Amino acid sequence: MSTPKKVVLAYSGGLDTSIILKWLQTEYGCEVVTFTADLGQGEELEPARKKAELLGIKPENIYIEDVREEFVRDFVFPMFRANAVYEGLYLLGTSIARPLISKRLVEIAAETGADAVAHGATGKGNDQVRFELSAYALNPDIKVIAPWREWDLSSRTKLLAFAEANQIPIAKDKRGEAPFSVDANLLHTSSEGKVLEDPAQEAPDYVYQRTVDPEKAPDTPEYVEITFRTGDPVAIDGEALSPAALLTRLNELGGKHGIGRLDLVEGRFVGMKSRGIYETPGGTVLLEAHRGIEQITLDRGAAHLKDELMPRYAELIYNGFWFSPEREMLQAAIDASQAHVEGTVRVKLYKGRASVVGRRSEATLYSEAHVTFEDDAGAYDQKDAAGFIKINALRLKLLAARARRLSGKG
Amino acid sequence: MSTPKKVVLAYSGGLDTSIILKWLQTEYGCEVVTFTADLGQGEELEPARKKAELLGIKPENIYIEDVREEFVRDFVFPMFRANAVYEGLYLLGTSIARPLISKRLVEIAAETGADAVAHGATGKGNDQVRFELSAYALNPDIKVIAPWREWDLSSRTKLLAFAEANQIPIAKDKRGEAPFSVDANLLHTSSEGKVLEDPAQEAPDYVYQRTVDPEKAPDTPEYVEITFRTGDPVAIDGEALSPAALLTRLNELGGKHGIGRLDLVEGRFVGMKSRGIYETPGGTVLLEAHRGIEQITLDRGAAHLKDELMPRYAELIYNGFWFSPEREMLQAAIDASQAHVEGTVRVKLYKGRASVVGRRSEATLYSEAHVTFEDDAGAYDQKDAAGFIKINALRLKLLAARARRLSGKG
Amino acid sequence: MSTPKKVVLAYSGGLDTSIILKWLQTEYGCEVVTFTADLGQGEELEPARKKAELLGIKPENIYIEDVREEFVRDFVFPMFRANAVYEGLYLLGTSIARPLISKRLVEIAAETGADAVAHGATGKGNDQVRFELSAYALNPDIKVIAPWREWDLSSRTKLLAFAEANQIPIAKDKRGEAPFSVDANLLHTSSEGKVLEDPAQEAPDYVYQRTVDPEKAPDTPEYVEITFRTGDPVAIDGEALSPAALLTRLNELGGKHGIGRLDLVEGRFVGMKSRGIYETPGGTVLLEAHRGIEQITLDRGAAHLKDELMPRYAELIYNGFWFSPEREMLQAAIDASQAHVEGTVRVKLYKGRASVVGRRSEATLYSEAHVTFEDDAGAYDQKDAAGFIKINALRLKLLAARARRLSGKG
Amino acid sequence: MSTPKKVVLAYSGGLDTSIILKWLQTEYGCEVVTFTADLGQGEELEPARKKAELLGIKPENIYIEDVREEFVRDFVFPMFRANAVYEGLYLLGTSIARPLISKRLVEIAAETGADAVAHGATGKGNDQVRFELSAYALNPDIKVIAPWREWDLSSRTKLLAFAEANQIPIAKDKRGEAPFSVDANLLHTSSEGKVLEDPAQEAPDYVYQRTVDPEKAPDTPEYVEITFRTGDPVAIDGEALSPAALLTRLNELGGKHGIGRLDLVEGRFVGMKSRGIYETPGGTVLLEAHRGIEQITLDRGAAHLKDELMPRYAELIYNGFWFSPEREMLQAAIDASQAHVEGTVRVKLYKGRASVVGRRSEATLYSEAHVTFEDDAGAYDQKDAAGFIKINALRLKLLAARARRLSGKG
Repeated sequence: MSTPKKVVLAYSGGLDTSIILKWLQTEYGCEVVTFTADLGQGEELEPARKKAELLGIKPENIYIEDVREEFVRDFVFPMFRANAVYEGLYLLGTSIARPLISKRLVEIAAETGADAVAHGATGKGNDQVRFELSAYALNPDIKVIAPWREWDLSSRTKLLAFAEANQIPIAKDKRGEAPFSVDANLLHTSSEGKVLEDPAQEAPDYVYQRTVDPEKAPDTPEYVEITFRTGDPVAIDGEALSPAALLTRLNELGGKHGIGRLDLVEGRFVGMKSRGIYETPGGTVLLEAHRGIEQITLDRGAAHLKDELMPRYAELIYNGFWFSPEREMLQAAIDASQAHVEGTVRVKLYKGRASVVGRRSEATLYSEAHVTFEDDAGAYDQKDAAGFIKINALRLKLLAARARRLSGKG
Repeated sequence: MSTPKKVVLAYSGGLDTSIILKWLQTEYGCEVVTFTADLGQGEELEPARKKAELLGIKPENIYIEDVREEFVRDFVFPMFRANAVYEGLYLLGTSIARPLISKRLVEIAAETGADAVAHGATGKGNDQVRFELSAYALNPDIKVIAPWREWDLSSRTKLLAFAEANQIPIAKDKRGEAPFSVDANLLHTSSEGKVLEDPAQEAPDYVYQRTVDPEKAPDTPEYVEITFRTGDPVAIDGEALSPAALLTRLNELGGKHGIGRLDLVEGRFVGMKSRGIYETPGGTVLLEAHRGIEQITLDRGAAHLKDELMPRYAELIYNGFWFSPEREMLQAAIDASQAHVEGTVRVKLYKGRASVVGRRSEATLYSEAHVTFEDDAGAYDQKDAAGFIKINALRLKLLAARARRLSGKG
Repeated sequence: MSTPKKVVLAYSGGLDTSIILKWLQTEYGCEVVTFTADLGQGEELEPARKKAELLGIKPENIYIEDVREEFVRDFVFPMFRANAVYEGLYLLGTSIARPLISKRLVEIAAETGADAVAHGATGKGNDQVRFELSAYALNPDIKVIAPWREWDLSSRTKLLAFAEANQIPIAKDKRGEAPFSVDANLLHTSSEGKVLEDPAQEAPDYVYQRTVDPEKAPDTPEYVEITFRTGDPVAIDGEALSPAALLTRLNELGGKHGIGRLDLVEGRFVGMKSRGIYETPGGTVLLEAHRGIEQITLDRGAAHLKDELMPRYAELIYNGFWFSPEREMLQAAIDASQAHVEGTVRVKLYKGRASVVGRRSEATLYSEAHVTFEDDAGAYDQKDAAGFIKINALRLKLLAARARRLSGKG
Repeated sequence: MSTPKKVVLAYSGGLDTSIILKWLQTEYGCEVVTFTADLGQGEELEPARKKAELLGIKPENIYIEDVREEFVRDFVFPMFRANAVYEGLYLLGTSIARPLISKRLVEIAAETGADAVAHGATGKGNDQVRFELSAYALNPDIKVIAPWREWDLSSRTKLLAFAEANQIPIAKDKRGEAPFSVDANLLHTSSEGKVLEDPAQEAPDYVYQRTVDPEKAPDTPEYVEITFRTGDPVAIDGEALSPAALLTRLNELGGKHGIGRLDLVEGRFVGMKSRGIYETPGGTVLLEAHRGIEQITLDRGAAHLKDELMPRYAELIYNGFWFSPEREMLQAAIDASQAHVEGTVRVKLYKGRASVVGRRSEATLYSEAHVTFEDDAGAYDQKDAAGFIKINALRLKLLAARARRLSGKG
């Protein structure tokens, strides 16, 4: 790779990406453009601007953007249409944010004439893969710099020394090592590493940052009604909300009731297993509710096909293949199923659990006339079932007859 | 179908199957053999014997058996190896019991020289399919009689009249209509129909029979440790237990903490949607725990393949194809993955939720040496990740280059 | 089912459907509308009009239509985008025609105020299922009459007697029994039954109707170039052709070279196995060519996903679920992959085989720069492969280390 | 990677691996053990021994083995049970040989106390991945040396210079560049590179080495009967043969009739597309025959599941994951289906095509009694089909009713 001349850096304003910023300047002597996104991680962005300026970034090279609506509308909601969970449990909160960041990095590179992008993910994790596959898929000629894979700042001590040598301000609480590592956005907060590295030990309560301990959650259940249109939530308790506003509201509700905590050991794309603590309060409520509305509005054939495709779809997102033809194919299939996934679901929130307790829809496929234990007025002829079973049984009977014949008992 | 001469009836001792018993005698003039199984439904079996005798069944034609161990060992546990859930949520508690009952019906038919079996499932549900496919798969020549599809006792009034006309004793509380219909076994209790037929209405609390209301569950969490070997649970809190004893224990624990309630609208195999309330206290704990032990002992490739195969596997069980080559193929694949699914999982039970909080195993694949944020002493070379990403990106870059070329911007 | 008043019959003009026509009139006393479609079966349609008139059908109730373009454009080509083959070999020539016929029957029923449709498929085959599922999916209230499942004309003798008794003219060659049964359309000809019922016996040559015996095909190969756009063939040897014209041309070419013969025993949806002889000359060439153009224009991720989805897609078509949400979902996924499946494929035709020998495209993903054995000028860094392999191997190494550890040899 | 001390080299005796041998000695100063396997590639092995001795390898370090039976029995046949084809066409002839070679390399390393293995695959292809994943899966601590990724012998000239400088004898015909590259074993011969690099150009006839040009094949068809037991071929024309002998016989037959030629552009695991010419004469006949015997002995449910699993299974083998849990899971599923895949298939060989024309088996599931167009004596009740269709249609009718309702036409 030839030396980059101008680099767009995914910049949080924190110590680590500030060190990267400086390292890019000194190591490559290149111009740095910073991109700081508000994905709903709950941090002020303006301090990042100040810090970037302090580190010598030209004002026109500082990009600070609120991308929450785009994040939820174009990434989170499409994913929830699929009921995507990775390894049965993980709602992909970190995975789904990476392609959006890469997309903006590549777009800003095009706008600013930069030939490279850089990120602060390590060489052991999934995020490096997600950032880079997305970048390459959007610009085949882009250079990607991953300082953590390149430099020799392999210990906390070396990092701090580099920071001090380069006049990077170090917040007091960053002098010591964090007891674990955190990623957050509007969908979730993840924590991993350090105190969490023994998967046999229960995670200490201070790890959780966004949900109350279920034991401390209200003693009274709360009900919420979520309304869907074409598979996406559009209103809460009858109030229409934008995607980001809706997810924010669900986060408040879920967080208050201790919903969405997950302690998981997962298989990383780079081959090792890692343990993470995830908090996805609003997403957990949303997943339940989406399944709830699908229960009455989605045909069984479509629903089962979706369930079969889902693990692959989730794996693609987890592995960083959001911008890939196969993810887009699966999305096309999933979206084709959602035209009439509409109506309202009633969810009960209580002590860490979100439970669907009711659903109604103009587009319901539930037919009381058919299913009733009462007289169905001819909607369904039970005698048809006899033929249905006989025909379904035919191949099994032929197999049984063969088994008998070959065993000499026939 | 020629007239059956001797029929083995799945007999609960209740009013409905007693009516069937009598109807078989009067309609077909055939000898009836009764089979009453203890699947853990929590009812005394001896009254069924008495009632059968009262209805004129010869003592040698009355089969009463405790099949709980076989049920859990040969049906429930194999299914849980797959983490099977139907339509994302249902633990298949009713579905998995049917093949065992059919198996015994067919075996008893062979022993007693009966040419037919009979069951009390209606023509609208899945159970008729499960009973009959299993029976035909085990004996291609067996006749199956499903009185609900044949007779004209289409109202409660007619049924009671038939009972009275035939001296079938009617318990007082059976005079009126039950407000919903129930099926139970060691794995679960399901309730459906009548008061539950409007899926928009929350199920009334009196429907739940086997789990306490989470709001009334203990205010203090309880921890339980479950030990697995080759994918199956073998001990609780260090105490080795037989399959049925273990599931019984988990049911007590789960039920006490309000765990395993599910309000579901599902797609029946016969084409309509129906609403059910399921309680699977022990099974819900077991599913969480099994996923927990797999997290550290099952390879990612195996785990993801399992997740992709699972929906089909669950569908086969739901649809009644337990005794089919394709279910057996999937079982072979699943079982091949479980050789080292062993170790102990710690689960927290609290107010309706079972959460894995720790897992440990001699066979763990979790390698702190690899995943650590600390110095890994060379276990993992981060530079390898660069090549890994580059090669994974190659096809995406070729696609991006094509898009650019064709758009004339390349 | 209440008695139908007006029925739209899929009418070929042949003896069997003429008998059905008359039977509908006499059995149900209902008005009959005939629909005769030119699907490319190679028969004149006007005789069907005359015969319908002779049997008393009012002119305004006689529908005769050339649906070849619609058939190929909206049914055959979408299916070939998927490379669909049933049970590894069958190109679904009969299956794909049924939904179109049903669609027109239902539409004509709406136009003419008919309340029922009727078809001439027997109760043992797949076609009854395909006709009826399609009809119900398009009009949930339509009645479907399948005379072969209802009447008692269970032998050739009875059929001929009925025909004679009802003044239905019987062609001389229909007096005896046909040695096998035939279905044909622009995509294929199938033959089954009678002389073909022993799957151990080679089909006699006189069964084949549309392809020459490869032994009698030209001794010199012929080349044809097929051009694709968005996954569909649009030109042959540079000449743009309509869908039906293109398939007709391919049929001539394939048939001349003995291409597309298949002797298959297949699993019917109704549970039994049957043996068929299929001739799909043009389709066989098209399948090869489509795979050929995909080889250079379809990304590997998309191609492999397509291959995995294909068997299910083919099964859905075979089983009659063309008009189902899950077929439409799969179609959406498949179509999403075909945007750049464009270019020209060169195919060699010789003695029963169509072989791709060359393909070229503006949208090619084949990069000689990358793959070359020669110096690649830095397009690909072989060292990346080392990292790629190391990371892919990591989980396998962890498994191997565990195996060693547990066996005590580690 | 620390410097290897003793290396087991996959050694063909040819120029390239001789250069590698010498390079290992000079570059790493390590002891070299050679492993030369007879996989049926059709070359004498003894010259390899002489050449190894000449290059200074100690006699006890020269391993020459005939592994043809193991190859066919334990690798080829299991793969053919799955009807495995990669990207719809490729019979995986190269892919399936690599794990066996790696297995022996690792075993010989253990026997000889070597700490490394080496192979002659380049950094652009799939074979490096297959060799190395297999090696790591069998010994997590083994070192793997891939000289083509390491050295700077990047041109033919440099290679020859190195050979001359190191007294490696160079056969006259190796002075110039080969016009394409070849890999061969008992299953197939592949050719790629150089003259084949333009996928638009038909491959010249001299590329084919193992099959006659179909145009020069016999003008008269030949028939062969292949007998199967538990999914594997065991006899030809009634003569029982060992696995390798059987495949050798099929190769002769297929090759004589020009069967098994394939011109393919495929997606490599390392991300690029490449063009190969494959000849798999016996394998092509075997695939047809295996499908033929499955047609009458394999249940539809099992067959369809196999078809759905196959692409993934083939991809795993292609990508080098033979020794992986997920391949083993799929194998378990596949093998579970083959218990009664037994009987005899009659195949017609003619001018490049192998066609099944008959099959018979004691274990047949084909039931003439059911399928017959003649009177079936009650084996099948056509009225059952009506119920079967009605129940299958129910969900489609509910969908159609909804569509009508929502459009206001209902």
